[in-house]
Amino acid sequence: MDIIKPRTLSGFMELLPGKQIQFERMTEILRRTYASYGFAPLDTPVIEDAQILLAKGGGETEKQIYRFQKGDSDLALRFDLTVPLAKYVALHCNDLAFPFRRFQISKVYRGERAQRGRFREFYQADIDIIGDGKLDILNEAEIPAIIYNVFTGFGLKRFQIRVNNRKILNGFYAMMELSEKSGDIMRTVDKLDKIGAAKVKVILMDDCGLTDTQADEILKFIAITGTNAEVLAALEGYAGRNEIFDLGLAELKAVTANLAAFGVPEENFAVDLTIARGLDYYTGTVYETTLLDHPEIGSVCSGGRYDNLAGYYIEKALPGVGISIGLTRLFYVLDEQGLLNPALPSAPADALVLPMLSDPAAAIALAQTLRSYGLKVQLYGEQKKFKQKMTYANKLGVPYAVLLGEDEVAEGVCSVKNMATGEQVKLTPAEAAAWIKEGLSANNGPVILEK
Amino acid sequence: MDIIKPRTLSGFMELLPGKQIQFERMTEILRRTYASYGFAPLDTPVIEDAQILLAKGGGETEKQIYRFQKGDSDLALRFDLTVPLAKYVALHCNDLAFPFRRFQISKVYRGERAQRGRFREFYQADIDIIGDGKLDILNEAEIPAIIYNVFTGFGLKRFQIRVNNRKILNGFYAMMELSEKSGDIMRTVDKLDKIGAAKVKVILMDDCGLTDTQADEILKFIAITGTNAEVLAALEGYAGRNEIFDLGLAELKAVTANLAAFGVPEENFAVDLTIARGLDYYTGTVYETTLLDHPEIGSVCSGGRYDNLAGYYIEKALPGVGISIGLTRLFYVLDEQGLLNPALPSAPADALVLPMLSDPAAAIALAQTLRSYGLKVQLYGEQKKFKQKMTYANKLGVPYAVLLGEDEVAEGVCSVKNMATGEQVKLTPAEAAAWIKEGLSANNGPVILEK
Repeated sequence: MDIIKPRTLSGFMELLPGKQIQFERMTEILRRTYASYGFAPLDTPVIEDAQILLAKGGGETEKQIYRFQKGDSDLALRFDLTVPLAKYVALHCNDLAFPFRRFQISKVYRGERAQRGRFREFYQADIDIIGDGKLDILNEAEIPAIIYNVFTGFGLKRFQIRVNNRKILNGFYAMMELSEKSGDIMRTVDKLDKIGAAKVKVILMDDCGLTDTQADEILKFIAITGTNAEVLAALEGYAGRNEIFDLGLAELKAVTANLAAFGVPEENFAVDLTIARGLDYYTGTVYETTLLDHPEIGSVCSGGRYDNLAGYYIEKALPGVGISIGLTRLFYVLDEQGLLNPALPSAPADALVLPMLSDPAAAIALAQTLRSYGLKVQLYGEQKKFKQKMTYANKLGVPYAVLLGEDEVAEGVCSVKNMATGEQVKLTPAEAAAWIKEGLSANNGPVILEK
Repeated sequence: MDIIKPRTLSGFMELLPGKQIQFERMTEILRRTYASYGFAPLDTPVIEDAQILLAKGGGETEKQIYRFQKGDSDLALRFDLTVPLAKYVALHCNDLAFPFRRFQISKVYRGERAQRGRFREFYQADIDIIGDGKLDILNEAEIPAIIYNVFTGFGLKRFQIRVNNRKILNGFYAMMELSEKSGDIMRTVDKLDKIGAAKVKVILMDDCGLTDTQADEILKFIAITGTNAEVLAALEGYAGRNEIFDLGLAELKAVTANLAAFGVPEENFAVDLTIARGLDYYTGTVYETTLLDHPEIGSVCSGGRYDNLAGYYIEKALPGVGISIGLTRLFYVLDEQGLLNPALPSAPADALVLPMLSDPAAAIALAQTLRSYGLKVQLYGEQKKFKQKMTYANKLGVPYAVLLGEDEVAEGVCSVKNMATGEQVKLTPAEAAAWIKEGLSANNGPVILEK
């Protein structure tokens, strides 16, 4: 038979079992956290009508999209989870209760130029809250609590949720009579972290055409930092000059007012006036999240408030707020930087039952019994020498091997070996289950280790 | 703005939140059960190189496949999970421990003609055990235990796992000197349930060219039924005439010998000599699973033993055994027939916290507290009249509403309303959590209701 050399497409993550188990641990934390805030799971198709998916059209998206014909149909793979959500809400709006809260952790597709750490197929882990006509600011205030619980759920402490409000920015540029240039200015200001204030000022003056005074005014504004109270106090100094600004400031106050009630420590939260998150879509609170010791990763969880989710599909105002985590890239970076906790079990089973018997019935029954105590148990069925069996157990990385020979059967016990310490004890099945569970629970550390 | 009418492609299942929650409950049972037997989760790409995916080539598959160009690449969407598994094992074989056990619950794509109950995008829930060169019969014997645990996990009792062995069939046709016609004969015999023995005999004689005696002999063979012991005894009558047959009979005995140790009741298991499962791929034990009260659904879980998983990709014998559940179709049929348990909660949250306060801080903290007890809690933030809030709670189908007004805050309690019974009690947050959890646990029935 002719052999075709197997390969996985470049830009597509395909993990070995141990890594996959670590990845699943992160998705499980996301699912549990999102669900704990009353978000419904959603699962929209990977393939959509291309006309519908590209209703907004334009630019980079259209170039990157996987689009193809099947029969007469013009089809495309989803490139994010927001457009399919917009379609879903427009299509099913009579059947949904608003506010409608959904999470979706699914793969999306972008045929980008392949490069290290960039993926063509990747998971997004999104939540959105969609209102019918209106949506209270309390929903925007709740988002940082969810982000906080996700990242502490991963085991992290040193991260910061950075929040701004687009109305504050729009109002500020309106005060400055720079609304028409606000897009260019925000794109420039966005580079502050990378190129520094001096270079930003040069671009603001040379490319955006601002005066020296205007550029200084902008740099002064975005340099406002400090505690939430200090930033809010500084912003008060601009109040009363523009309605949009004042509205944004009121919203920002509402978002920061209840951080303590939401359980978000002040050190994990910051008002950051440099954050803008794109130009058109977001209209209120915007969010970014950075790992303090790894600023090079950029924002690991971003989103914001928007006024019109599904304007391309329905004549109904559907405001919302949402965030997205690029899970595949996050996992890739954490793994590359050695931040995934290597102490957590990465074997598919908690225990491997190794029969050393002519009749396997007792080993089969033992494995069933251990499972009944909630353990993940693999029964090893191959006729191999003892040494080969232990080699397999080691390669699998299974934390416990359970040996059953004629002697153990006669005594009503099994020999349980802790593969890490080498300790081996004879126990009844019930005692074995308890001993293994105790050992496993000691290994129950965070998914991500801060260094 | 021009409105594009939203739609979801025909043949693509897109569920409302309540149904999605029921669907997820089934996938969760599958994941838990598969994992409990030591299968590792796997997640291969949806898109593969078309040349690799179609290495086997041929027929219906090639017509149904979604295949397209992107740049210079000839790509295709996976049409099952077995071919990607073969590629994966061939590609990563040096990094895997054999036997390699994996489960995957993922979407696959087949551009079939759309018809009611047929899907172009659907979930398969597969397990496979792959050996390196050899794989012990104990693995084949374990599969019925896993199937049994999946379907009892769903809440079913009236199902039957039907097992046969391809070596018995091949050996029998060899004895009859009908090996060359065995494909046609098995395809004909496969229609027995639908068209009856008389018509099968006519086709065997007229189309397959068998003599009257040969046709009778075949009908007599496949009519062998009874308890496992009776069927095995009847098969012993054919023993000693063909090596392949004898080997198959020994395997079948090994598979049935330990049913009790595996915890599979005799009434959920049957040796069924009419089962063949296709013609080329399977070489040993084959499995089908039927719901006894719904034979019209056909097999809901099928698979078998194969000798060569990845012959197209690697010159290495990789025998295996696996089963697959067509989850999307199964869910569709169960739902259509009203078999999904309507008593299980289908709301995204266990409790909806309704603040009736000027300052939401106390309600925010209450929701956080209830979550800390493991409850899924939605905080309702909209400024609406009480009646509208309760209408929302009802539409959401949330089992408990938790009301918090100034009086409750002053007393340190909240008012918890059981939405099904209308009962409303004032409780501390801890008491409220306990009361809600108690009520929810009473609703903890099976996913599928047998009628």
